Amino acid sequence: MIDAAKRASAHSIIAVIPYFGWARQDRKDKPRVSIGAKLVADMLSVAGIDRLITMDLHADQEQGFFDVPVDHLYASSVLLPYIKSLQLDNIVIAAPDVGGSKRASTYSKYLECPLVLCNKTRPKPNEVADIQIIGDIKGANVILVDDMVDTAGTITKAANLMKEKGALSVRAVATHCIMSGHASERVQDSALEEMVFTDSIPYSSRCAKVKQISIADILAETIRRVENNKSISSQYLI
Amino acid sequence: MIDAAKRASAHSIIAVIPYFGWARQDRKDKPRVSIGAKLVADMLSVAGIDRLITMDLHADQEQGFFDVPVDHLYASSVLLPYIKSLQLDNIVIAAPDVGGSKRASTYSKYLECPLVLCNKTRPKPNEVADIQIIGDIKGANVILVDDMVDTAGTITKAANLMKEKGALSVRAVATHCIMSGHASERVQDSALEEMVFTDSIPYSSRCAKVKQISIADILAETIRRVENNKSISSQYLI
Amino acid sequence: MIDAAKRASAHSIIAVIPYFGWARQDRKDKPRVSIGAKLVADMLSVAGIDRLITMDLHADQEQGFFDVPVDHLYASSVLLPYIKSLQLDNIVIAAPDVGGSKRASTYSKYLECPLVLCNKTRPKPNEVADIQIIGDIKGANVILVDDMVDTAGTITKAANLMKEKGALSVRAVATHCIMSGHASERVQDSALEEMVFTDSIPYSSRCAKVKQISIADILAETIRRVENNKSISSQYLI
Amino acid sequence: MIDAAKRASAHSIIAVIPYFGWARQDRKDKPRVSIGAKLVADMLSVAGIDRLITMDLHADQEQGFFDVPVDHLYASSVLLPYIKSLQLDNIVIAAPDVGGSKRASTYSKYLECPLVLCNKTRPKPNEVADIQIIGDIKGANVILVDDMVDTAGTITKAANLMKEKGALSVRAVATHCIMSGHASERVQDSALEEMVFTDSIPYSSRCAKVKQISIADILAETIRRVENNKSISSQYLI
Amino acid sequence: MIDAAKRASAHSIIAVIPYFGWARQDRKDKPRVSIGAKLVADMLSVAGIDRLITMDLHADQEQGFFDVPVDHLYASSVLLPYIKSLQLDNIVIAAPDVGGSKRASTYSKYLECPLVLCNKTRPKPNEVADIQIIGDIKGANVILVDDMVDTAGTITKAANLMKEKGALSVRAVATHCIMSGHASERVQDSALEEMVFTDSIPYSSRCAKVKQISIADILAETIRRVENNKSISSQYLI
Amino acid sequence: MIDAAKRASAHSIIAVIPYFGWARQDRKDKPRVSIGAKLVADMLSVAGIDRLITMDLHADQEQGFFDVPVDHLYASSVLLPYIKSLQLDNIVIAAPDVGGSKRASTYSKYLECPLVLCNKTRPKPNEVADIQIIGDIKGANVILVDDMVDTAGTITKAANLMKEKGALSVRAVATHCIMSGHASERVQDSALEEMVFTDSIPYSSRCAKVKQISIADILAETIRRVENNKSISSQYLI
Repeated sequence: MIDAAKRASAHSIIAVIPYFGWARQDRKDKPRVSIGAKLVADMLSVAGIDRLITMDLHADQEQGFFDVPVDHLYASSVLLPYIKSLQLDNIVIAAPDVGGSKRASTYSKYLECPLVLCNKTRPKPNEVADIQIIGDIKGANVILVDDMVDTAGTITKAANLMKEKGALSVRAVATHCIMSGHASERVQDSALEEMVFTDSIPYSSRCAKVKQISIADILAETIRRVENNKSISSQYLI
Repeated sequence: MIDAAKRASAHSIIAVIPYFGWARQDRKDKPRVSIGAKLVADMLSVAGIDRLITMDLHADQEQGFFDVPVDHLYASSVLLPYIKSLQLDNIVIAAPDVGGSKRASTYSKYLECPLVLCNKTRPKPNEVADIQIIGDIKGANVILVDDMVDTAGTITKAANLMKEKGALSVRAVATHCIMSGHASERVQDSALEEMVFTDSIPYSSRCAKVKQISIADILAETIRRVENNKSISSQYLI
Repeated sequence: MIDAAKRASAHSIIAVIPYFGWARQDRKDKPRVSIGAKLVADMLSVAGIDRLITMDLHADQEQGFFDVPVDHLYASSVLLPYIKSLQLDNIVIAAPDVGGSKRASTYSKYLECPLVLCNKTRPKPNEVADIQIIGDIKGANVILVDDMVDTAGTITKAANLMKEKGALSVRAVATHCIMSGHASERVQDSALEEMVFTDSIPYSSRCAKVKQISIADILAETIRRVENNKSISSQYLI
Repeated sequence: MIDAAKRASAHSIIAVIPYFGWARQDRKDKPRVSIGAKLVADMLSVAGIDRLITMDLHADQEQGFFDVPVDHLYASSVLLPYIKSLQLDNIVIAAPDVGGSKRASTYSKYLECPLVLCNKTRPKPNEVADIQIIGDIKGANVILVDDMVDTAGTITKAANLMKEKGALSVRAVATHCIMSGHASERVQDSALEEMVFTDSIPYSSRCAKVKQISIADILAETIRRVENNKSISSQYLI
Repeated sequence: MIDAAKRASAHSIIAVIPYFGWARQDRKDKPRVSIGAKLVADMLSVAGIDRLITMDLHADQEQGFFDVPVDHLYASSVLLPYIKSLQLDNIVIAAPDVGGSKRASTYSKYLECPLVLCNKTRPKPNEVADIQIIGDIKGANVILVDDMVDTAGTITKAANLMKEKGALSVRAVATHCIMSGHASERVQDSALEEMVFTDSIPYSSRCAKVKQISIADILAETIRRVENNKSISSQYLI
Repeated sequence: MIDAAKRASAHSIIAVIPYFGWARQDRKDKPRVSIGAKLVADMLSVAGIDRLITMDLHADQEQGFFDVPVDHLYASSVLLPYIKSLQLDNIVIAAPDVGGSKRASTYSKYLECPLVLCNKTRPKPNEVADIQIIGDIKGANVILVDDMVDTAGTITKAANLMKEKGALSVRAVATHCIMSGHASERVQDSALEEMVFTDSIPYSSRCAKVKQISIADILAETIRRVENNKSISSQYLI
């Protein structure tokens, strides 16, 4: 589509990719692997994009994979209002793994509530990986925060453990609803009260606990502002 | 130097930059800023490097800013043996801020010891930022882990707080010794037993608590292996 | 894979793509379409290939879509010997459409036998497209020649018409065995004696009339010669 | 001129090259040759064109040699009306060689008349190449169609043979009037009634049989539409 | 700043660099050196400039180091009027070395007065380099012309020699006021009446003989004309 | 040829262009002109050269137009020995215009003899341009030095004037023998004793005063050293 638009004399080509799907391959975390996100960025560039509008890249650093302007939107602009609307007492924000502690920290700062962290410990050979909760969750209404949920293995295990350890309730919010394989069953069978996503990816399965909040307004407003050469509203950039 | 080598018919040009100095500008963390690390990567590329050997980039994702192979070494290959040589009981690894929790987690897994996390809380206007320690450090020999220490403000504040909260001892290890401004005084006056760096950056001030461990062997061996077309030793890639 | 090889310091990266699958999108044949083959060539280049080994591109001009050397092999080096081995009298080579007349002409010159051509006539609205045979096929053993067979609609219609118009037998040879949808049934039910492909694409369906001749030797020899810096054998370049 | 315009701050640079002169070198048809058309495309790009307006490239695939938009006009928009204006009965469209069969086929579809094809047969060493006519031309008013006429050797030989074989009349139409060497004498002495070109190349020789039809209107209208950001008229894109 | 502007969607980025500081490294004048001016040009390009406004590059050829338009202004548009305002009789224009003879020649043509040239002669080992004056300066009011004055060694030595050899007065004009090290003392102690610069570089030292003429109007007018898509005033391009 | 070599898998492509013919268009000396030398450099690069061997570019700065290594040879390595072999007394080196004063200065330093300079004065409208000689040539054996001689107008006018002004003899040496139009007649009819070139360009006219010295040895040795990865002999780089 980009090439067709370019050869048909498009004035400029703006890719709107709410879920940048290759974003997890963002570094060489072991020898002999590719950095898929950079490769796809290069392919989009060689095809001819002039700008990218996307949401919650796996790592903020991926903005630097592009030489064209990137409007990097944050789902927190819809997820934080949702959390507030629940009017819960004693909220604790939790990161399901250390990689997500920065994102969770932003939520905890905004909501002015404590932050806890899940850390997978390296088990001995033939033992199942164990999750350790760093920080206090007793009697709290825990909100797990992540950028995407794929197999839902880690997040449900964390939720169950938190409930066991005395959390009053456990919810999860995440931007991108991948929910592959048995993810829906895992969420349904877990201690999670609900699992809230944006609709950056359509969710076709059925799971009563899964809820999606639309980002259509954010994208529409962003496209309108780009078209009119205005700055992106700062409320989308939390 | 790269341009001179290129125009003088160098067969290949390998930049050995132990401390990639622009690495903290690795994303657009607010509007209207540059991604300096990407810009410098582009400048090195346009000048003509064929390969980069570097250590502990601020974010692993910055490897993707380069289209040439990057040998990304880890200082943990000298810092972990040092920690072990101390033969401390009851070690706890601590990240001085949420951004460094991944790095600290790697150390805690390797040393099979608990992980704690410091989180700066957003103070009300006109209040000093406060640090909150997530996890338990009472009676522990704490090792704070970071990639670089610049003003030493955060790390000394964290160390002091930990000592107050009952830590037996507090040490810090970090890869890059920037130590600008009053950093040396801060370290000297803090609760830190010692502050251990590599020598990726020379340290010219005097502070009895600062120690530097040489990475010359790692770099030499890496250059030798690149020259001989061998893989980098996996022990440098922890 | 190309990016992984590049970042792992491969000396050179040679893509062996026997069937270059996007090759039919090789020009803007109507407004607002992409030139997919050029786009994929650019993507392979930006990923990092140093050379391409491929076979029977849809158009020879696609070699110019690459700035790296292309070894463009011809399946005729296995298909022509096969035709000869049939020891047929009175062979006539046929192109199933005007676009393939150049390829068919090469076969007819090599086998020193006549060439005929099928031409689809533009039907009036709501009429089925009609095929017209240009040249004489009465009493001949016809060999239809093409670069790929996809739905097998045109080639079986041409074969049936030729048999009706007095051809003694009709065979088809083609390089790339796409054979999608009902292609196998169409070939089975047609007047074709046999449909001979290379194995550039595996054929998983079952159809007694379909035969595949291996190009493994050609590719192996080509790779060996590229590796040893020798010219490609001219017998593969007919 | 392109470089001068670029350095003088031209807003955009559009090359209008009715006859893209290097277009015949469009593929590696034997080892150790260049793909001249791609090279010239690259040179135009590096000099700085933003768009190309051209007519009847030797192969449609050459559009893919450019990364900028190409307006590929067809001379058929002036040549077909001319043929119609002759009000001939029993027209047969002929391709002078197999390479031109696609172009001739387009004319035959548009005029709803039969298509025939000339095929050069490979002579034995020391014999003159022979032309074979595939299809029936007896009693027909033949129109030979080509993209360019250079030495006029093939087209006049084909015309003479057709007249011999019983054609009522033979005419030729072609886009680009190269007419080098003894081409004018050959046309004058041949069985051709007339040889009709566009004026994409000026014709300075004198030959009563040669006629040129202006493409000035097509180019002017195309430039006007590009300037005004409109689509090219579909009547120029037949 | 360029990268920040690019990533913040600037419509175009114009660098105004009155003194292009790396301009003296404009060629490989001995083996194993870089061409720094080209490298910086490439770096500015990769960062993203669309245009450069600069003044009196060390060599006019450096315009070709850029692929974007360069507005190359000449300080002569302020320095020549200043010289005229002095209303001196018997002016002689002098180049302080052979490399500057072209620039001095332009001044001499414009002022319709004679040109002389200083030539450093190659001394024997352990002898001080000697300056030879080519042309006649007896009784003349000499104006030395250069593009920049750095250590002021050559220009003051030339001035002193000229005064010795009978010049009535010696002045110097130059575009860029580098004046490093002991330059101010050298000028003060020399035979120079005055040393006139533009303010392309601020001059912070104090030396009564140094005078700066503002180029603010030229730059402002040039920016205004670029913004309004007009040609640069020819009076700035002498 | 470059494209053909590249597509035929050449290991590296080295252009040997003794006379880089577009070298005089090396800057924008007036508005709306191209920098032809840069454009040709870009075209050579896009075609695929890995290195350039050339001699006496019009301006040394043109080395920076290339991103590949340039071996910039100097004809002085054959012309200086020739001058010495003449065993003339009282040699004076002369530049025929101010643009060539640097080149002439190099000769004068090497031969330890005086330098003079010709300066074209700007005549009033409808007057012939006048040449002024700066420096003393009375009784001297003058050697005019230039990089190329095209119409020979300036150099012969300068020679005649010098003879008139009392030079004992006038010779000229130049690298590139363009000698277009009436150049040979002009040289023959002038006061020049001889006009000595290298054979970078063949000279087909006849003029008894024109002599060519071969640079074949220099080029051969340079190619041999590049092939063997050695430095160019410093004697060719004077």
